[in-house]
Amino acid sequence: MAATGARLSREARREQLVTLGHDLVAASSFEEVSVDDVASEAGISRGLLFHYFPTKRDFQVAVAERAARMLLEATETDPDASVTDQLRGGVERFLDHVASRREAYLSLVRGAGSGEPALRAVSERTRGVLVQRVLDGLGAEPVPPALRLVVRGWVAASEEIVVTWLVDGGVDREEIVDLIVAGLLLQLGVLLDERDVARLLGTA
Amino acid sequence: MAATGARLSREARREQLVTLGHDLVAASSFEEVSVDDVASEAGISRGLLFHYFPTKRDFQVAVAERAARMLLEATETDPDASVTDQLRGGVERFLDHVASRREAYLSLVRGAGSGEPALRAVSERTRGVLVQRVLDGLGAEPVPPALRLVVRGWVAASEEIVVTWLVDGGVDREEIVDLIVAGLLLQLGVLLDERDVARLLGTA
Repeated sequence: MAATGARLSREARREQLVTLGHDLVAASSFEEVSVDDVASEAGISRGLLFHYFPTKRDFQVAVAERAARMLLEATETDPDASVTDQLRGGVERFLDHVASRREAYLSLVRGAGSGEPALRAVSERTRGVLVQRVLDGLGAEPVPPALRLVVRGWVAASEEIVVTWLVDGGVDREEIVDLIVAGLLLQLGVLLDERDVARLLGTA
Repeated sequence: MAATGARLSREARREQLVTLGHDLVAASSFEEVSVDDVASEAGISRGLLFHYFPTKRDFQVAVAERAARMLLEATETDPDASVTDQLRGGVERFLDHVASRREAYLSLVRGAGSGEPALRAVSERTRGVLVQRVLDGLGAEPVPPALRLVVRGWVAASEEIVVTWLVDGGVDREEIVDLIVAGLLLQLGVLLDERDVARLLGTA
């Protein structure tokens, strides 16, 4: 591959390698993609790849960070929309994003929650951003610790429901979105007082 | 270690190695425990360990299965108790079990949800058993697909809330249990009709 083997700046080469790694993982899984495959696709030697990423783990972390960034970008919603529109829009975008890359999502985002500290840190940060977005949307300040925990649980539940549904089916897409959004709103009804809920739902 | 190095039956040796591996992982994490550590603790050679477990992955799967079995045993509840008592009791036991081994839990049970198919299968089976227990307790037959998804999401949320709470604190143990149990009951109220909910809560 003359084009990919051509001279690139350090930054461009790193970007290219991460993109290749990400695409290969998206097509199979983290475990099945070797550093050799990536080097070969890039038209460079294995040794040169390790020049850009000192260890295989460094490369995996860079690929996981790319996947996390793509997830966060794909699920961004309009901060000026109502809370329920933001929740609904965020869930729909999350569902579509995961649907387009279920295996890669499992490997890169969820699997990163494993015992490996550097990968777990990527996963933790990503989940933290999703949780903070919801909390910002709710506008509770300061955030009660119980509310933060409930939102974290809701993000985990949403992920599990979407990942399972993509395999098992049996429920309409719209019903899945309804179920997920309702799951949070019902718990907010217990945690917040009536005025807050009315304000959030735009019925105050 | 003369005692551990002694001759053992094949089955007893496998059990011993899995127990050692499990205890070592429980004290640190999957990534930090080497097969050499386990062989050394057992007073046998690395080669002999591979006689019992052909690959490191086989050994890891056996250790993950042990951890999963311990989790399932620790969280069993009385099937004759009311649904809410079973839910509450199950959540309390889950919380205590994870509290006593957070790192090992993350590595062995949650981390097993990673991209590695054999480990992911252990994690999937374990979660499947927990979900089925809740569904059996609810007694809905046949199980509506939406209900199964909601229960799966609830199990994932419970895990996330407990794991986060063990680090962050800020909420009483009893409040955490309340939050988790309420999370499911609220959703059941939407999915089941009023008579079913009254029956489940013992207020029919």
